[in-house]
Amino acid sequence: MQDLVSKLVQKNSSKIVFCVLDGLGGLAVDGRTELEAAKTPNLDRISSNSSLGLHVPVERGITPGSGAAHLALFGYDPVRNEIGRGVLEALGLGIDLDSSDVAVRGNFATVRYEGDTPVVTDRRAGRLGTEENRRVISRISSAVSEISGVRVSFYPGLEHRFVVIFSFPDRLSESDAFVCDTDPQLEGVVPIRPSGESDNSRKTAEVARELIDKACEVIRDEPVANYMLFRGFSVRPDIPTFHEAYRLRAGCVACYPMYRGVSKLLGMEVIDVAGNSVSDEVQALSASFGDYDFFYLHVKKTDSYGEDGNFSAKTEVIEEFDSLLPDIMGLEPDVLAVTGDHSTPAAMESHSWHPVPLLISSKYCRSRGLGEFSESSCLYGDLGIIKATEIMPLLLAHAGRLRKFGA
Amino acid sequence: MQDLVSKLVQKNSSKIVFCVLDGLGGLAVDGRTELEAAKTPNLDRISSNSSLGLHVPVERGITPGSGAAHLALFGYDPVRNEIGRGVLEALGLGIDLDSSDVAVRGNFATVRYEGDTPVVTDRRAGRLGTEENRRVISRISSAVSEISGVRVSFYPGLEHRFVVIFSFPDRLSESDAFVCDTDPQLEGVVPIRPSGESDNSRKTAEVARELIDKACEVIRDEPVANYMLFRGFSVRPDIPTFHEAYRLRAGCVACYPMYRGVSKLLGMEVIDVAGNSVSDEVQALSASFGDYDFFYLHVKKTDSYGEDGNFSAKTEVIEEFDSLLPDIMGLEPDVLAVTGDHSTPAAMESHSWHPVPLLISSKYCRSRGLGEFSESSCLYGDLGIIKATEIMPLLLAHAGRLRKFGA
Repeated sequence: MQDLVSKLVQKNSSKIVFCVLDGLGGLAVDGRTELEAAKTPNLDRISSNSSLGLHVPVERGITPGSGAAHLALFGYDPVRNEIGRGVLEALGLGIDLDSSDVAVRGNFATVRYEGDTPVVTDRRAGRLGTEENRRVISRISSAVSEISGVRVSFYPGLEHRFVVIFSFPDRLSESDAFVCDTDPQLEGVVPIRPSGESDNSRKTAEVARELIDKACEVIRDEPVANYMLFRGFSVRPDIPTFHEAYRLRAGCVACYPMYRGVSKLLGMEVIDVAGNSVSDEVQALSASFGDYDFFYLHVKKTDSYGEDGNFSAKTEVIEEFDSLLPDIMGLEPDVLAVTGDHSTPAAMESHSWHPVPLLISSKYCRSRGLGEFSESSCLYGDLGIIKATEIMPLLLAHAGRLRKFGA
Repeated sequence: MQDLVSKLVQKNSSKIVFCVLDGLGGLAVDGRTELEAAKTPNLDRISSNSSLGLHVPVERGITPGSGAAHLALFGYDPVRNEIGRGVLEALGLGIDLDSSDVAVRGNFATVRYEGDTPVVTDRRAGRLGTEENRRVISRISSAVSEISGVRVSFYPGLEHRFVVIFSFPDRLSESDAFVCDTDPQLEGVVPIRPSGESDNSRKTAEVARELIDKACEVIRDEPVANYMLFRGFSVRPDIPTFHEAYRLRAGCVACYPMYRGVSKLLGMEVIDVAGNSVSDEVQALSASFGDYDFFYLHVKKTDSYGEDGNFSAKTEVIEEFDSLLPDIMGLEPDVLAVTGDHSTPAAMESHSWHPVPLLISSKYCRSRGLGEFSESSCLYGDLGIIKATEIMPLLLAHAGRLRKFGA
């Protein structure tokens, strides 16, 4: 699908604004979903002239993580283009990754030594505090920064989590990172030694082994965080940028590092946002509206409150977005889309597989005059139930950016 | 799709009951389909809290046989995993197949001999009686039981039909059974000699040729059934079991051998049913409810009456199922699905390609409050029109048995 679209894209002066309310879709509590309970006069008003539908993020029944769901929204097959856990963690910490980097998710752990053999007694080092984490990381960083010509960088995360980046001298391929996890997933056992699962990942595994030996020697005297376990060795996926795929100059308006990171992976430019509110985001969008063809605007808290099971707070975030919609419409984008990357029903306190409401506004909509934006109305919309990867082609089409296929 | 699902499955203590009313879908006669004409207060009641939709068994416009339709319902691509005709016939006769068996569908035929050359005069031996069939099979079985180290077993079917199993000493692959049909599809011509269509099917063809020569010599003096024609040489498909694909302990509640056979192919255990009624099946389900994670309950007569063109009898079977639904719901399965494997409209007296009504009941349904289970209401359901292979992922998701995809 993306290949076909890439062949047909053409440039013009249109502007596309793609608003993603993270985890937007919900389930009814007392008869109404979060979106149905929210007072959204502006969304409802534009709904009557818009295309409505629902999208399936990955496949029916599949609950996506945020990375996979965003790739799909942006038109990339999320199954063929899986983002590794190490890379995703790195993006979440705001780390810029190069094509010669291997990213690894690390956990501090506690081990006891039987002679020189470590035995895991706590896989998460008692979920040690973030401050402690920073202190231990800094000890390691001062002692180890290079292994056999490979630069090694440590970045503390929350609690027991951290990220290690191995910076090799040369560009890497995906298989250079095929190294097994060292986390044995059990306590009372010896950590797994990193080993290469492909010919060209042997070097990566070797560096990892040496790193573990050296770094764990440094922290052997720590009372709790005296060992490290690695998971998700990965390189950034080799996928076309937004400009390569769609010839769009794309800007990202997002406050959370992970979403900025995914956007950067796709070659979007990250637009500065002054604060953390949706209002700050809309202001950033306005301020940069002349600079890009395509804007991705991300609202995080719909998802966070959904995960917390906080139905009413999720509803309020939707209302906050709705109140700012006139400011976005005031910019007169040629195409506006509003949707979520997946559903996060407060009733489930988690991401889910349920299809996500989708609105596309342009002057070329075959709208059904449904004056409401909700899970129910979208089911009767003109788009039906589509796959997330079908959204980008539709936005490009509405923007006049796709040439005719075939003579 | 199934590969992705297999990677994400996890175990829990949930129970899934999958009720398949064979050939459920219909066409309207006097304005109502069989399902719409049936009084189904229980199905209608749970519909208002359920997910509703329709499924396309294979592809739009494709009318499936029962084997293919069931594979699709169970999440197996029915086009990539075709079950050979010989295997399907064997399953229908309740024959257990091994991975070293080739199954062949046989027809008794009548030939006249020109010298030693047989010429087909009746491809079905006048549809000879089943008793006659048994008598002739028993004559052959006493005379021929082994050809060049391959055990040969004959099983009589109905009228002129029978099954031959070639039991080789070693495990076979699909291509070992690539042998041409011997039925010339015409009368007044010489039967086709079995020949191998792949390198490693030559041995199978050789055995078949020798078998035909020996067995047809034995029955040369028969007045009608004096020859045999072979079709559908096949081995059991090499597909993952239900446990491999979904980590489900699955039980089959079905009275007809073919459906029990397909279930066994997929590694389900066949649960004893005391009689042949739907009520007997529901009792068997209840009695074994503690023993499995997943139950496939098959109701045959909706299809049989559809094939007979008996609209009202098909309607009554649906009503009978509905009356037993409270007993199934009383078991409190976490997920209940009700659908058909395909449509069998009484108006057509045959299987058809029309999408099939589907109901999924769990506590995670985005139900639309449609208080009716019918072709029409399902068209307005929250699931839309999906493919049959998408049902299993949905059931697993509703049962909490699928982990999130991507971090």
